[in-house]
Amino acid sequence: MGPQDAAAQGGAVPAELARLRSSIDNMDAALVHLLAERFKVTQRVGELKAGLGLPPADPVREQAQIARLRALAEDAHLDPEFAEKFLNFVVAEVVRHHEAIRDARD
Amino acid sequence: MGPQDAAAQGGAVPAELARLRSSIDNMDAALVHLLAERFKVTQRVGELKAGLGLPPADPVREQAQIARLRALAEDAHLDPEFAEKFLNFVVAEVVRHHEAIRDARD
Repeated sequence: MGPQDAAAQGGAVPAELARLRSSIDNMDAALVHLLAERFKVTQRVGELKAGLGLPPADPVREQAQIARLRALAEDAHLDPEFAEKFLNFVVAEVVRHHEAIRDARD
Repeated sequence: MGPQDAAAQGGAVPAELARLRSSIDNMDAALVHLLAERFKVTQRVGELKAGLGLPPADPVREQAQIARLRALAEDAHLDPEFAEKFLNFVVAEVVRHHEAIRDARD
């Protein structure tokens, strides 16, 4: 079958592709709920840090998190570079929240 | 307590902060394993698409995923903008994998 044939069939999704997408959708719902819960906890961390006068970002903690997640990623056959980028992506959002909490108190 | 006082206490982590960080670490391990599983499935999607001659990216599917995840995020009290950015971040990595699969076959 040539590269254009399936695309020319008019958009019907093959059964296996539909099945795989359904699994992806389930995992994405789980990821969103887990991220929602993670931000609930980091929100509490932000309030605690603001109350204690601790800075929003913590480079030592972040380095330890990166090293741990890279090791977990390797065990799970996930690209460690991607795991690190993912953590940086989430932490950037968290630090943004923490700065907002701190600024609201100033 | 002033902004510098806790920081000046020499790096001891308050008990509640340590407890919250332990929960974050548990959730991060779950996130990494879920992402690893998601990439296993999208790897299979990439192989299937390459075999069928379907393009790596699918804008119609991606729009449906974004709308669904934004709605799930709102229900879970997660910023829908962040949920969308998160999906775009993951999908960008997936498309990169799919292009690599396609290029390896060319």
